[in-house]
Amino acid sequence: MRYFTNVHDLGNLKDALKEAFEIKSNRFGYQELGKNKTLMMIFFNSSLRTRLSTQKAAMNLGMNVMVLDINQGAWKLETERGVIMDGDKPEHLLEAIPVMGCYCDIIGVRSFAKFENKEDDYQEKILNQFIQYSGRPVFSMEAATRHPLQSFADLITIEEYKTKEKPKVVLTWAPHPRPLPQAVANSFSEWMNATDYEFVITHPKGYELAPEFVGNAKVEYNQKKAFDGADFIYAKNWSAYTDPNYGKVINTDRSWTVDSEKMALTNNAFFMHCLPVRRNMIVSDDVIESSQSIVIPEAANREISAQVVLKRILESL
Amino acid sequence: MRYFTNVHDLGNLKDALKEAFEIKSNRFGYQELGKNKTLMMIFFNSSLRTRLSTQKAAMNLGMNVMVLDINQGAWKLETERGVIMDGDKPEHLLEAIPVMGCYCDIIGVRSFAKFENKEDDYQEKILNQFIQYSGRPVFSMEAATRHPLQSFADLITIEEYKTKEKPKVVLTWAPHPRPLPQAVANSFSEWMNATDYEFVITHPKGYELAPEFVGNAKVEYNQKKAFDGADFIYAKNWSAYTDPNYGKVINTDRSWTVDSEKMALTNNAFFMHCLPVRRNMIVSDDVIESSQSIVIPEAANREISAQVVLKRILESL
Amino acid sequence: MRYFTNVHDLGNLKDALKEAFEIKSNRFGYQELGKNKTLMMIFFNSSLRTRLSTQKAAMNLGMNVMVLDINQGAWKLETERGVIMDGDKPEHLLEAIPVMGCYCDIIGVRSFAKFENKEDDYQEKILNQFIQYSGRPVFSMEAATRHPLQSFADLITIEEYKTKEKPKVVLTWAPHPRPLPQAVANSFSEWMNATDYEFVITHPKGYELAPEFVGNAKVEYNQKKAFDGADFIYAKNWSAYTDPNYGKVINTDRSWTVDSEKMALTNNAFFMHCLPVRRNMIVSDDVIESSQSIVIPEAANREISAQVVLKRILESL
Repeated sequence: MRYFTNVHDLGNLKDALKEAFEIKSNRFGYQELGKNKTLMMIFFNSSLRTRLSTQKAAMNLGMNVMVLDINQGAWKLETERGVIMDGDKPEHLLEAIPVMGCYCDIIGVRSFAKFENKEDDYQEKILNQFIQYSGRPVFSMEAATRHPLQSFADLITIEEYKTKEKPKVVLTWAPHPRPLPQAVANSFSEWMNATDYEFVITHPKGYELAPEFVGNAKVEYNQKKAFDGADFIYAKNWSAYTDPNYGKVINTDRSWTVDSEKMALTNNAFFMHCLPVRRNMIVSDDVIESSQSIVIPEAANREISAQVVLKRILESL
Repeated sequence: MRYFTNVHDLGNLKDALKEAFEIKSNRFGYQELGKNKTLMMIFFNSSLRTRLSTQKAAMNLGMNVMVLDINQGAWKLETERGVIMDGDKPEHLLEAIPVMGCYCDIIGVRSFAKFENKEDDYQEKILNQFIQYSGRPVFSMEAATRHPLQSFADLITIEEYKTKEKPKVVLTWAPHPRPLPQAVANSFSEWMNATDYEFVITHPKGYELAPEFVGNAKVEYNQKKAFDGADFIYAKNWSAYTDPNYGKVINTDRSWTVDSEKMALTNNAFFMHCLPVRRNMIVSDDVIESSQSIVIPEAANREISAQVVLKRILESL
Repeated sequence: MRYFTNVHDLGNLKDALKEAFEIKSNRFGYQELGKNKTLMMIFFNSSLRTRLSTQKAAMNLGMNVMVLDINQGAWKLETERGVIMDGDKPEHLLEAIPVMGCYCDIIGVRSFAKFENKEDDYQEKILNQFIQYSGRPVFSMEAATRHPLQSFADLITIEEYKTKEKPKVVLTWAPHPRPLPQAVANSFSEWMNATDYEFVITHPKGYELAPEFVGNAKVEYNQKKAFDGADFIYAKNWSAYTDPNYGKVINTDRSWTVDSEKMALTNNAFFMHCLPVRRNMIVSDDVIESSQSIVIPEAANREISAQVVLKRILESL
């Protein structure tokens, strides 16, 4: 595996899950692979979980790690040819990106949707520039439209906790005061659609995700109906995708908050969220503190998903 | 040892000192202990000496290190239950802290007194949250009321330089333009009280430390009397502890500056300070540059105190 | 080798080049040297290439690395004796620098010209303070007047690409909107003068470099004449050195931009630049994208020059 940007890069999911559980039981068993190999983590957006878990995964594999924090404002790379660079952009991406590739073996990139231009976001302009110009294997540490390390960790977690072969998994929108990217919701949908689970998406009108991510999922506008008989509730806020509201908050209706009354409609479902989570907006205190809440084991599996991805890329070098 | 927040966590001080000197003569002799173990250093306040010396100690032990710098302003964790988190706090500590614990084996925390609320400071609210919720061993890299890695390094230094079994050690307040926490003074007092040294504290009226830290120390308001026959002079500024002046500068009297005239009253005492030090406020140029000044070896011992603490925690894992 | 601040520290250049090529073919062959040794990299100015390449070189050698970023504004060290430090400078360099030396084995320092005082810049005040007070070997990661790791990488690159024993190398000034230090141009000149290449410097009137760096180079004010028959074109902007214009931009004439018309005057010269480069100010798109552009291999050799320097310092410990 040379690139990891979406579910398809991983190939057969059952094989990937098997590998994940092997790694989880033997985290330090593959250090020869990473010896004298360097991971460069490039952050255009701040990060807590992703930075720590990915760095930990790389160290588990015996790799060296270099972290590059690029202030969103500071990364002023010229991208066009022919421009006389006498302004505020001191470097062209055609030099900057290959140079970063010189000093490492694998590159991880985090670059969120900017909500300035939907096409730029959905074409994953920055991530793809790294793939095209760095000369190195590249993986996403959350890009404009997907967060595949999170989704892979989510899948691992569901496999660990599920009590039936094909659980019913519900992705539910929940309110949030600020406009968030669709990346986690898109990505989770993409991964769930790649399984044989029963997958339902529920959200208020106007929060429809891009059709390529919805795929064959059932969309249910009535949240309570969606929760009926669910085995896993995956809560997440996202801003509107549909024009003319792209990237906007069009609803903060707290009747969509996940609470114990709604959880009572489920099949004693586990509660999941990628974190950070705003309590009593996304989910009530009692639900996230209940024994069915698996948000911490879910976060812990971020180390595992990152380690599978790094291990596979190392094997391809 | 699972936690290190004060002198009592270390148990018998003579044993700890013996261990410190063993480590100092064989810094790289314990690398099997730290193999595949990860230290996470979390800084709510900036740091030079503590960061570098603790990271060095961890690397001596063969550990991996991850550093997390949290701007004091940026760490807006909700701490109450029931709050509708629609404001500026994006995460609740009940999620944030356990997640950090997922990706490491040991946590070091630096969190100074905020001087907003004396009770919050003296109850060590933030440090204790990490102890309670992280699921990992935790040690203080300077908390609101104590700086035990510094005090342990101070003790090691005194043991190295003392020329009699029970030296006279004097902690003297000295002026400083800004309000500083009491942590170093508190902690030094706590450690000195745990030895059989003769220990004297001297400061202007109004700068009394908390009684639980003063303990059985002799408090002498006349600085020159205090210096008489001293073997070690430990200078430090702190802001007022006593209400209603908690956290305030109530005196900048430079007659309290340690100079050579006062040092002449001592038994050719060694001069100590935790650094950074403001010259000619805390101490005159000639005293800090004299052959009796041991501030640099004292700083160097920060690596040793941190390594003893990390080694003991590693042994307990 | 205990210090590396200029070409002379490296001794015989042919030996250094031989060592560079050995290291390039066997980057991980010297890890016993760096075992349990710590590099501290101190940045007074921001860095991309230098930080990543030097850190990579240190890791190649099995070293531990600590990075210290010091905001130019935040590094307020008192440097005078006798000052009552009651202002905005919390520490004196006579404490700060030796303490840094306590926690590492080798120190790298980046500190640019400030253009406030030509004497301070050209006396390398900050770099020399580290040499004088740290108690550790020190190397420059670009100082006020020189950038020797860059120049060494440049030399390695020329040796790799040259097709004749004594190539003609031309350093050409090119326009830039902001005032840049003379360090790269000075240093490149110093290194070229230490070879037996034919070396020519070309720039507009008023951009004369300091005589000690120009040395025996031929200075040619007509850029096209200078390019005639050149084997290597090394482009770089610098601000004026000569008083009263020290540190100022006195010319932004784009007729000095390196373009294909001028390159046609050369002996099919290779194009070099230290990066970052402003396209169509310093060099046209077609020249930097041509097959004769070797800016990326030149950047990649930064890892090699740093590794030779670190290896030699390690050998001297």
